[in-house]
Amino acid sequence: MDKDLILLGHGSGGKLSHQLLDDLIVPTLSGIPVAEQNDAAVLVMEGMRLAFTTDSYVVDPVFFPGGNIGSLAVNGTVNDLAMMGARPLFLSAGLIIEEGFSREELAGILRTMREAADAAHVRIVTGDTKVVPRGKADRIFINTSGVGVLEHDLDISGSGARPGDKVLINGTIGDHGIAVLAAREGLELESDIESDCAPLNGLVAELLKEGDAVHVLRDPTRGGVATTLKEIALQSRVGITLRERALPLNGAVRGVCAILGLDPLYVANEGKLLAVVAPEKAEALLSRMRNHPLGQDAAIIGEVAAEPAGRVTMETTVGGVRGVEMLAGEQLPRIC
Amino acid sequence: MDKDLILLGHGSGGKLSHQLLDDLIVPTLSGIPVAEQNDAAVLVMEGMRLAFTTDSYVVDPVFFPGGNIGSLAVNGTVNDLAMMGARPLFLSAGLIIEEGFSREELAGILRTMREAADAAHVRIVTGDTKVVPRGKADRIFINTSGVGVLEHDLDISGSGARPGDKVLINGTIGDHGIAVLAAREGLELESDIESDCAPLNGLVAELLKEGDAVHVLRDPTRGGVATTLKEIALQSRVGITLRERALPLNGAVRGVCAILGLDPLYVANEGKLLAVVAPEKAEALLSRMRNHPLGQDAAIIGEVAAEPAGRVTMETTVGGVRGVEMLAGEQLPRIC
Repeated sequence: MDKDLILLGHGSGGKLSHQLLDDLIVPTLSGIPVAEQNDAAVLVMEGMRLAFTTDSYVVDPVFFPGGNIGSLAVNGTVNDLAMMGARPLFLSAGLIIEEGFSREELAGILRTMREAADAAHVRIVTGDTKVVPRGKADRIFINTSGVGVLEHDLDISGSGARPGDKVLINGTIGDHGIAVLAAREGLELESDIESDCAPLNGLVAELLKEGDAVHVLRDPTRGGVATTLKEIALQSRVGITLRERALPLNGAVRGVCAILGLDPLYVANEGKLLAVVAPEKAEALLSRMRNHPLGQDAAIIGEVAAEPAGRVTMETTVGGVRGVEMLAGEQLPRIC
Repeated sequence: MDKDLILLGHGSGGKLSHQLLDDLIVPTLSGIPVAEQNDAAVLVMEGMRLAFTTDSYVVDPVFFPGGNIGSLAVNGTVNDLAMMGARPLFLSAGLIIEEGFSREELAGILRTMREAADAAHVRIVTGDTKVVPRGKADRIFINTSGVGVLEHDLDISGSGARPGDKVLINGTIGDHGIAVLAAREGLELESDIESDCAPLNGLVAELLKEGDAVHVLRDPTRGGVATTLKEIALQSRVGITLRERALPLNGAVRGVCAILGLDPLYVANEGKLLAVVAPEKAEALLSRMRNHPLGQDAAIIGEVAAEPAGRVTMETTVGGVRGVEMLAGEQLPRIC
């Protein structure tokens, strides 16, 4: 019975999402091999390489510490383009609004979208607005699609990780997911946890100054760092070893995760990127990250090996080693 | 009170939609002057002109005679690109699915999307899937965004109508709206009414063989022919006169409209275009339409005059003249 229905977990970004994508959606819609799936499609048009991507945002609550659905929608799509090494240029905005939604809140969301677009140096050039009757949607959903240009001939994709490469992250993990969860559940926290929602294209431009040393870029959103690294390991047919001790983690996020039994490795981020890079340039890239406002807590968190292909393992703080799999089921629905 | 809330009419495509767009959404998000608003944005990149557009589809019911939300989503965005005179090339697909939706129905919708894409010679290259808990959305919503290329230097836009121009339509009006309404309300009709949902890019390519004779192309979807002509009259600062007798109308649609008190001029179409063209080429363009499978019932339905600017009037079948305004309020919610 259940296998005939769409479950919340099919939208988790984790294992069930991948099954639905691989078994049904991608073969039916596009026929693009799963191994070539990235955060955006690359379109070659008259010798120019464009990146094109889409994301729908259904976050609950609509407003949360550090952002709202509007900043999420702009930055999320900017980041998907940036993860291809593209310079984001143009966005669309498709609004689905529930009848009775506050016009003032809508105005606030739209203002945030414009501010986020200005900050990321992109323009929102086209849009669409639908309104559905009360109870047929939950307040507001926003789709943003984006077009960017690849101004280099680098091949940055999930299949680019090579044995010996280093894995870098630009800062603390789990902030976005825990900020949204705390806002949704009305948790009273001793210290404020804010979403890390931010545009990563400026940071990516800085990293690309090291040329072809950057092999993979991915933003660990739904499914968290664990799921994203597993995707890279599968696409690149390599093993990835992660050092738990090296993972930057905000103390408050660690505390909430411990209390609620959540693993921060699976919690969504919205202003973080994982970079898999050539080992000889890892320190230079780490410096570039740390000198950027969005990379002050950057760290080298792991390495790539030839074997075991498709596997991610983590050296834990207590000295053990454990396998890291994709998110199974749904940890935190409607996180983005 | 009401003016502080978003109403169903704000999604009608008519007068309230325009007010929301003009007063809030467009100035906040983009600052693009209302007079320059078209079905798609034109992006100039390294000398190449691209068209970029987005639409979210929330049609109820999801399946209806002549199509489903998937064919609507593909053809609707293909048509928005075609209305700019662009050749549609690439689409994105953003799915928002309600938990518990049938996997089999999803598969059917996705197959339809692929078939519609193949028929329109476009590729679905990128996508996103979100799942929300039961009751937080209504079955499935689909956003499609599209990228196309302008392979000519014609300037086709809503501001291009000139005094003396003729107004053409490629066939009967109101079929889509009435087909969806009948399916939603379970009306038992003597003759089947099917949605006219179809990709118009092939027909547009045929029309563009007459070069710069084509001044405006618009597909009269939400708000119907009346609202679209009013938009053109306002954007081009011209008067448009419509002949009711010339409007192609399926007898069954006429009958349902009469019984339900609906004006077919305001009912949505999904496979129709309005073309405002140079008078000396009007007959040639009419022939091209009629020789195309999607234009067999094409007709010249009106003329453009210098005055009264921004006004649409209709010579009625009984010999009178009446003003035609944009759709006020919401006639048929969730028609696309």
